Amino acid sequence: MNIVLAPDSFKGSLTALEATNTMKRAIESLGKGDQIIEKPMADGGEGTVDAILSASGGKKVPFTCKGPLGNEMNTYYAVINHTTAVIEIANIAGLTQVDKGMRNPLHTTTYGLGEAIKDALDRSCTKVIIGLGGSATNDCGLGMLSALGMKAYDEKGEEVGIYGRDLLRVDRVDIDHLDERLKNIQIQVACDVENPLTGENGASTVYGPQKGASAEQVAMFDQAMERFSRLVDPDKTVLSLTPGAGAAGGLGFAFLALGATLVSGAQLVGEITRVEEAIQQADLVITGEGQSDEQTLYGKAPGYIAELANKHHVPVILISGSLKGNVDPLLERFDGCFSIINEPLRIEECLVRAEELLYNQTKQIIHLTHRLTGISTPDASSGA
Amino acid sequence: MNIVLAPDSFKGSLTALEATNTMKRAIESLGKGDQIIEKPMADGGEGTVDAILSASGGKKVPFTCKGPLGNEMNTYYAVINHTTAVIEIANIAGLTQVDKGMRNPLHTTTYGLGEAIKDALDRSCTKVIIGLGGSATNDCGLGMLSALGMKAYDEKGEEVGIYGRDLLRVDRVDIDHLDERLKNIQIQVACDVENPLTGENGASTVYGPQKGASAEQVAMFDQAMERFSRLVDPDKTVLSLTPGAGAAGGLGFAFLALGATLVSGAQLVGEITRVEEAIQQADLVITGEGQSDEQTLYGKAPGYIAELANKHHVPVILISGSLKGNVDPLLERFDGCFSIINEPLRIEECLVRAEELLYNQTKQIIHLTHRLTGISTPDASSGA
Repeated sequence: MNIVLAPDSFKGSLTALEATNTMKRAIESLGKGDQIIEKPMADGGEGTVDAILSASGGKKVPFTCKGPLGNEMNTYYAVINHTTAVIEIANIAGLTQVDKGMRNPLHTTTYGLGEAIKDALDRSCTKVIIGLGGSATNDCGLGMLSALGMKAYDEKGEEVGIYGRDLLRVDRVDIDHLDERLKNIQIQVACDVENPLTGENGASTVYGPQKGASAEQVAMFDQAMERFSRLVDPDKTVLSLTPGAGAAGGLGFAFLALGATLVSGAQLVGEITRVEEAIQQADLVITGEGQSDEQTLYGKAPGYIAELANKHHVPVILISGSLKGNVDPLLERFDGCFSIINEPLRIEECLVRAEELLYNQTKQIIHLTHRLTGISTPDASSGA
Repeated sequence: MNIVLAPDSFKGSLTALEATNTMKRAIESLGKGDQIIEKPMADGGEGTVDAILSASGGKKVPFTCKGPLGNEMNTYYAVINHTTAVIEIANIAGLTQVDKGMRNPLHTTTYGLGEAIKDALDRSCTKVIIGLGGSATNDCGLGMLSALGMKAYDEKGEEVGIYGRDLLRVDRVDIDHLDERLKNIQIQVACDVENPLTGENGASTVYGPQKGASAEQVAMFDQAMERFSRLVDPDKTVLSLTPGAGAAGGLGFAFLALGATLVSGAQLVGEITRVEEAIQQADLVITGEGQSDEQTLYGKAPGYIAELANKHHVPVILISGSLKGNVDPLLERFDGCFSIINEPLRIEECLVRAEELLYNQTKQIIHLTHRLTGISTPDASSGA
């Protein structure tokens, strides 16, 4: 049987690569001689670069930049097809890179992201793909734009810094000195949220608290972004209202101002890794993620994979860490949805035992699939 | 698709009938026009009479007898094929019929079971089938044999009572006046334990504590059973060593003394309900139980169902409340084993939500099965 494995990460326990590998081992343990195609997925968040490197080849580019708290650190991005850089904010200014006690959008910056883009430009990349998920920042792109040549000043005409706290006092910006090369490249931003920049659905109000912002700070940031957006984009204020402008603490807006297009993260990753070609030739597709609910159908990697499988009439199964609420709608896209949990467990135990549980559940499902379809290669006698 | 549903009960949450019915509703909700054959299972314990009544027809016979604590109560047994009585100890001298604080094998009796057998004899039954699981008693059948005409005396020659405490002082028995009709009937006892009557694997040592016996009482009961068995069965002491003699607080021994045969509970129930005939004509079999582990393959209802399905080459799926430990061995008999749990839950929540969880999991599995087999009746368009 020709099986495509295309899970997203199981957040908090397994990366997409680890999940894919675990599923593969489980299937191989059945010794049925299945052909397994690994296409780990991502939606623009943590693991996007790794998934793309694993599924499409490409080159891992180590570099040094300022991390979310401004400290120098080593990280990496990917270059695929020699001219396309794939950069994720999660490993440059990521929430998981900041200890819980230290999370505070006043003190975080997207500066490193600008450095990454410059590094890609130095390598003559003509296209930059950005994964926006999982940022620790709420600086509206102040840091990134500063790294790329923008100058920002306070009321007294003094140049401000690169952190969230500096955004609050920006009074004037000079974007004439932005890196010239930006004009000649294509920027695609993987973005799965629809939030505008400000207001009750804006970046600060919706995502500020989980990044460590107090209620008072949320209000201050909301005003500051409103002002900053008018400074950066005096004529086209519509940008701040564009769905996705509020992504990643206002980075969505900053990228829109740079002329980027916002696209679905899962789709972008899938296109790069050519998952559709693999699905087209498959007998079965398995996808997965840490937690599934109705939202899984909208913009999430498993929903995207299911759509492709449906399009090519290939059975598709979802294996999830946990299925929440009414999952009946999922049956319209998936042929079966199963949790990895097989006994009463606390969430902490599930996270710790995720690999073992995923292994076992995959085994059960593929065992059943073989029995029900009767498909297996003739030399199936080898193996356990 | 022709689907046989043959689950055991999900102990602590769903009876076998409820489980069967829940699975049926789930399958019908898919609107694929599946043919569903309901064969709720039991293994001789609680629910055995109900499962048999539901799956084989037969007549429910209400009657009044002494309960486990000696109080008069209303209960029932079944008569099938007009001449076979099916009696379960769980609803006559059952552990769940005694409040936890009241559990004490000194004060419980199997007297009602003897009354049930007499009632069956009065109705001219020629065969009696007994489900031995779930007893609250440890009286070695003293109560039952007393109801059937045995007399037991203490050292002073005074007739003793019918409770566990009375067993401790039995010095002489008179079995000459046992009901004459017992000689002309066949007694089959559904028994799934292998314990001898006494010793470290005996009834008192192994099961006494869960029935409320203290360590001291366990030792007293063990000695008393040893003495009682020699009184009842002076020539054939081998009976007390027969596997199963220690079942149901020594009732196994008492039945052996009456000439009964001990058989596997699941097999007995399956034969009565003709589950094999149904499986033979099925496209898929689903069984289930509250908790599964390696032991599921040995003497448990799902293991028995899997064996029949394997024999007739019909795919068989296990849906369990919980899968414990290494379930790889189960894949040798089952085509897939799935827990009903789909998110991190405490055991208490699982028990409360068992019906909903079983409903959802059944739906997922049957949905997938239809997709993978492509079998569904042509007029599948009706339904949801």
